[in-house]
Amino acid sequence: MRESSARTMDQHTPWHLACVVCDAIYPGLELRYRCECSGTLDVIHDLSKCELTKEKLDLRLGSKKPLDKSGVWRFRELILPLPEETLEQIAATRGEGSTHLYETQTVAQKIGLENLWLKHAGENPTGSFKDRGMTVGMTLAKHIGMTSVACASTGNTSASMASYAALSGLNGIVFIPEGKIAYGKLSQALAYGAKTIQIEGDFDDAMALVQEICNSEGIYLVNSINPFRIEGQKAIGFEILQDLGWNVPDWIVLPGGNLGNNTAISKGILELYEIGIIDTLPRLAVIQAEGANPLFTAWNGGGEMNPIKAETIASAIKIGSPVSWRKSMRGLHALKGVVTEVSDDQIMDAKAIVDAAGIGAEPASCATVAGIRRLVSEGVIKSDETVVGILTGHLLKDPKVVVNYHMNELSNINSKRANAPIRTSADIDEIRRIIRQ
Amino acid sequence: MRESSARTMDQHTPWHLACVVCDAIYPGLELRYRCECSGTLDVIHDLSKCELTKEKLDLRLGSKKPLDKSGVWRFRELILPLPEETLEQIAATRGEGSTHLYETQTVAQKIGLENLWLKHAGENPTGSFKDRGMTVGMTLAKHIGMTSVACASTGNTSASMASYAALSGLNGIVFIPEGKIAYGKLSQALAYGAKTIQIEGDFDDAMALVQEICNSEGIYLVNSINPFRIEGQKAIGFEILQDLGWNVPDWIVLPGGNLGNNTAISKGILELYEIGIIDTLPRLAVIQAEGANPLFTAWNGGGEMNPIKAETIASAIKIGSPVSWRKSMRGLHALKGVVTEVSDDQIMDAKAIVDAAGIGAEPASCATVAGIRRLVSEGVIKSDETVVGILTGHLLKDPKVVVNYHMNELSNINSKRANAPIRTSADIDEIRRIIRQ
Repeated sequence: MRESSARTMDQHTPWHLACVVCDAIYPGLELRYRCECSGTLDVIHDLSKCELTKEKLDLRLGSKKPLDKSGVWRFRELILPLPEETLEQIAATRGEGSTHLYETQTVAQKIGLENLWLKHAGENPTGSFKDRGMTVGMTLAKHIGMTSVACASTGNTSASMASYAALSGLNGIVFIPEGKIAYGKLSQALAYGAKTIQIEGDFDDAMALVQEICNSEGIYLVNSINPFRIEGQKAIGFEILQDLGWNVPDWIVLPGGNLGNNTAISKGILELYEIGIIDTLPRLAVIQAEGANPLFTAWNGGGEMNPIKAETIASAIKIGSPVSWRKSMRGLHALKGVVTEVSDDQIMDAKAIVDAAGIGAEPASCATVAGIRRLVSEGVIKSDETVVGILTGHLLKDPKVVVNYHMNELSNINSKRANAPIRTSADIDEIRRIIRQ
Repeated sequence: MRESSARTMDQHTPWHLACVVCDAIYPGLELRYRCECSGTLDVIHDLSKCELTKEKLDLRLGSKKPLDKSGVWRFRELILPLPEETLEQIAATRGEGSTHLYETQTVAQKIGLENLWLKHAGENPTGSFKDRGMTVGMTLAKHIGMTSVACASTGNTSASMASYAALSGLNGIVFIPEGKIAYGKLSQALAYGAKTIQIEGDFDDAMALVQEICNSEGIYLVNSINPFRIEGQKAIGFEILQDLGWNVPDWIVLPGGNLGNNTAISKGILELYEIGIIDTLPRLAVIQAEGANPLFTAWNGGGEMNPIKAETIASAIKIGSPVSWRKSMRGLHALKGVVTEVSDDQIMDAKAIVDAAGIGAEPASCATVAGIRRLVSEGVIKSDETVVGILTGHLLKDPKVVVNYHMNELSNINSKRANAPIRTSADIDEIRRIIRQ
């Protein structure tokens, strides 16, 4: 971090950085990602002067101003409260957020609920929830004068980073490990023009190298450790509440991989509560895949998190050593949270239900619905409680798994809702028979 | 059509159907797709009583009502003016439209313009502009009591139809030809639960069979011939004007495949002009791929359209016999339109520019940008004119072509903007060298 500290800006900000472990504090614009003690950092806002109201936020829904049209920057006083004129000039926005909240009886009935809403973060511009955090990370990078940004990722993060870097006129650099890469997953990073560097070694090697390079070359790191991405991701919680007319649901449920998203949502909701925009709190449920369940083990065992080797069909949550685990536990405690796990078979069955409701989402997203179903069956969630589940990625992020499921070609998955094409001759009576089935 | 006429509803509507060829008229809710003379049909609104204003439309931007949040139903008086309470009950909406209008200097400069806006219809829920038409087709199907809907399609239409059918509780049926089907393109139809019937024969056979089955089985046909889909697609033009504060651009440019989209945009804009919401008209440019250019040939030859065997990398506009050609010419005449053609190489080069600007779109979408570039170079579009280009599909609709382009693996395409991954050892100095390049 030596070279980086030279870039620290002395500007006063209505927020500062604080260590999650030792409570050490740092200036709001200091270029650092970890505390001296190596703990991760939080953005702490001075909320005493925040004059945001429901009415002000609702008025912005009708505005044509880019900051208001963004489902992140609409809540800017709680995200990155730079002066309005500064944000108007530098905010790296492409209309992220403002995604649909589906009220779905079809899915609700199948999993034992009376009311279910699904908030579709996969409807963001690059197809995943990552855009909400990236717009903030990239805006901060511009504000402190960075010209390049980097991350290690083979999936949704690289896609989002590459797009927002290009949009902001910054150089985007993606580090990926060698070996069998599904380039389909990288197609967005390549398309959006990020320099993509494939390194001999595994993902941990790529991660270590990107951190070293960022520090020595003055490049801004936008991996999950970046605390400003969390600030942007908070907006999904704000938007759910705004969608519901500021009525607080009983539960918010989402998948847990790197655990940044649940960290963000709980942080944001507690801030909304602190400034009086809501006066009750929802409970939070985090759903992990059985093969990628370090938080589940730690939370239910009451102890520290132990990294594991992750394996699940839900690639977006296939993470064995989540960087935000400690932050995320804090939010779980504050919101009377629960953590559960579901099998790949349960995830794919839930996905078939969500897809066939006409909504559709990538596998990791559907861990949410599989988890709700489990928690309802266990009586943790009551059937008459109001539940909002978050879908994190678009169906189009993983078309291969869709086709393989419906052709019954996934090993260890029982495709019991398979919808394979039906072959027939061009005989009209035969076709009639098929249609009437 | 015999069985169908029995379903005709006698309800009075503020619109009727009219034949594009012989001007015969039919009731607004009659279940028919062609005139007795076999001409295609138009929805003709009675605009004399339409009291829509800019102010009313702008007020709806801030509303949380589902009809107002939809970028189609926000303009309902000009789309499908059923009573408000009826629409509130039956509208098959999932927040389609309200897509981003990108002002992009990066792309503008590269193609010789001072100002360019790109309207991204690929940001619709299923990833293409088809959702705007489908929400209206499906709503009409529900209104007249249909329980099943069908189309022949291997691409964006099947995806959109399957989603909206599922959302509406209707049975969706997709007809596809036998042979080498890229199931990836069908993944959405399978996922959203449409019954997918693969028929021995080619696409024309599938198309003929779906029409026969729809007529005999009382199934609603939502292929491009359906006039109500055009009504929904008009909204992309309305939204562009609303995005621009009701200032009319000099040009609107879009790709031409089946020609429904340009038909819709010109129809809608002429209606806006008729009711006085705008007082000038934009010009319209339709861009075809060289290998799928029947409108280009007909328009510039001044005659009838002759079907061709289409071949282009831009699969969404690979159509040799566009069903809406006659309708589309009418709009081109009214808006002083031009039709041009571009090569696959030019399409892919334009795509590399659009993608690297951080926006991204499927190949057919980028015919728009390739076409603008050609028209600017020919002096048809002046560099200081305001131009809005329409991108019709999301980047994620065709990730394979992206990877193949950047790996320089497309035959007959010069990947001159290729952005392939760079392989390196885990040597920090080597990585620094790569980054500084």
